[in-house]
Amino acid sequence: MTSEKRAVLESEIRRVMDSRAESVRSRDSDAAVANVAPDIVSFDVVGELQKIGRDECRKRAKEWFSSFEAEINYEMRDLHINADDDIAFCHSLNHVNGRTQNGQELDMWWRATVCLQKIGGRWLITHEHSSVPFESKTGNARLDLKP
Amino acid sequence: MTSEKRAVLESEIRRVMDSRAESVRSRDSDAAVANVAPDIVSFDVVGELQKIGRDECRKRAKEWFSSFEAEINYEMRDLHINADDDIAFCHSLNHVNGRTQNGQELDMWWRATVCLQKIGGRWLITHEHSSVPFESKTGNARLDLKP
Repeated sequence: MTSEKRAVLESEIRRVMDSRAESVRSRDSDAAVANVAPDIVSFDVVGELQKIGRDECRKRAKEWFSSFEAEINYEMRDLHINADDDIAFCHSLNHVNGRTQNGQELDMWWRATVCLQKIGGRWLITHEHSSVPFESKTGNARLDLKP
Repeated sequence: MTSEKRAVLESEIRRVMDSRAESVRSRDSDAAVANVAPDIVSFDVVGELQKIGRDECRKRAKEWFSSFEAEINYEMRDLHINADDDIAFCHSLNHVNGRTQNGQELDMWWRATVCLQKIGGRWLITHEHSSVPFESKTGNARLDLKP
């Protein structure tokens, strides 16, 4: 693949990721799943081992967004994108900061991996994995880590 | 891409994953990183947000393997593979079961995402993400989940 072709593919993926980030900031759960495949397999930061399907992801996004009092500050750091014609993956360190409905300040980093497939001419997220590591001695999730 | 071509690519990735699973069972840290890229970005189940590089991964595999008294029972369930000519990703639910050096029985499921690139004609793992979710109320990692 030429470097020009690769740059085009990477910018297509970047647009998907940027629009997703914007949907978090504006707490728009429909926009958050606009590029999600109907049968996505999602490994989320909290809850069960996996969630299957776009509807589950929309529900979860809605719950999460509504736990904030107002706008969410959200950034993706170290976003790496690798794309071929029909398969792509990217990973980043994500940061959220905002005041929750119960008056606390949430300030947290986590790891995100997003995998996409070109389906019917459109890039759709068919798998994603978000998490924090845990401390093996205590079994506590490490919510205080910074890159 | 033809379905035959896709099947060939998927079987190439499956071989990488099978050989990796075998390396865990036999607690062979060199074999565990045989298909890992020198500059891998690894999001591990414990520890820091990320580890960079094959040497870090080998060190971590060695420590983890040596925490077991004898052989490790290891399975990958629901392994999904998606591969294009030069980019691939797969995800699975992984299970480990074995007796640790401190006499405890470890029996744990986690989520795994492995991303590969064909580099110099070989599939190499350039990114991986392993985790368990945490319980939002307590902040505890959920080590007791089963699929």
